[in-house]
Amino acid sequence: MQRFSKKVSMTVVKRLPKYYQYLSDLLENDIEKISSRELASLMGLTASQIRQDLNSFGGYGQQGYGYNVGELREAIKEILGLDSEYNCMIIGAGNMGHAIANYERFKREGVILKGVFDVDPLRVGTVVGSVVVKHMDEIEKFIKNNEIDICILCVPREVGQKVATLITDLGVKGILNFSPLDLDVPGDVVVENVNITDSLFTLTYLLGE
Amino acid sequence: MQRFSKKVSMTVVKRLPKYYQYLSDLLENDIEKISSRELASLMGLTASQIRQDLNSFGGYGQQGYGYNVGELREAIKEILGLDSEYNCMIIGAGNMGHAIANYERFKREGVILKGVFDVDPLRVGTVVGSVVVKHMDEIEKFIKNNEIDICILCVPREVGQKVATLITDLGVKGILNFSPLDLDVPGDVVVENVNITDSLFTLTYLLGE
Repeated sequence: MQRFSKKVSMTVVKRLPKYYQYLSDLLENDIEKISSRELASLMGLTASQIRQDLNSFGGYGQQGYGYNVGELREAIKEILGLDSEYNCMIIGAGNMGHAIANYERFKREGVILKGVFDVDPLRVGTVVGSVVVKHMDEIEKFIKNNEIDICILCVPREVGQKVATLITDLGVKGILNFSPLDLDVPGDVVVENVNITDSLFTLTYLLGE
Repeated sequence: MQRFSKKVSMTVVKRLPKYYQYLSDLLENDIEKISSRELASLMGLTASQIRQDLNSFGGYGQQGYGYNVGELREAIKEILGLDSEYNCMIIGAGNMGHAIANYERFKREGVILKGVFDVDPLRVGTVVGSVVVKHMDEIEKFIKNNEIDICILCVPREVGQKVATLITDLGVKGILNFSPLDLDVPGDVVVENVNITDSLFTLTYLLGE
């Protein structure tokens, strides 16, 4: 599934979802054409950053015309891998697991919630999002039967590594990690951390600056 | 409240919560001394990165001894502004607001939840975390009476900017923003975004790489 021949910097990769969001907004407002300058001003970037970013994926603009919003959005959607569907599961049916399970946006972008898991008897059997919470004992069979691409980890810090090892041993290749720890995973597994405490601490730092 | 004379890069700032976490873990395990090499290996950094990072705040190590874990943790705690208390409020008592309100860690680090606000009559009056949800109509008086430092924004994208303008007009200087949009705020207000959809899209990108 190698989409590009050259390595794109993480700084550019991290900006792609932002492009996707802004272009989607433009389309919703029936704006079909935009110059790099206009897009830059909207996104708080410079026109040359925009051109450089998009050039690193092959470039999509036309001199003197600008970008076709719909085409560029489709291209970025594809670059982000959002032209495919993903089967996902949540481990940890606490407050954060609930919040994620009810996040409409994920489904809209083709990330399909197949299961939610927990070990707490009070949670197992309850409905979270649109699925019934299963016990962790069933996870092996479940991952095998459902071709899970993404696991969303919402477990306490203390068990995060144990659960990560379990699911990667079972073949899961993508983890969206809400548990506040750095996971040690095999080299072919990708992890994206959402560390809310870290974000809070960055904020308290910036407040004191 | 300017703590340092020189501007520290955001890359270093973003690593500080990680230092704080690792040093706290070490202390909990009664490890009182660590070399930059050991700390580096633990954190997946290089020893020279560690020394550079900590030097940018004045340096805390002693040649041939390494770092005193407790002292370094205290220093980073202070740098992060976690030696102060912060009054915080949550706007939006949906699933994400619930998850954040119940996040024990915030309180432990001195971020005190003073109020939760919503406009939904079904939510107003219910208990979230340890507080009773108030209606947005009461927000002006509330912010004035409670010296709110941090507002945690968990509202739908469509109203995010409106709410951000309202609270910054009322004097709030720090926003932890879970609403998936870029906020336009006055120059003296700091915003830290937690954009879960962006993290998901970074993951789908990396899965395809």
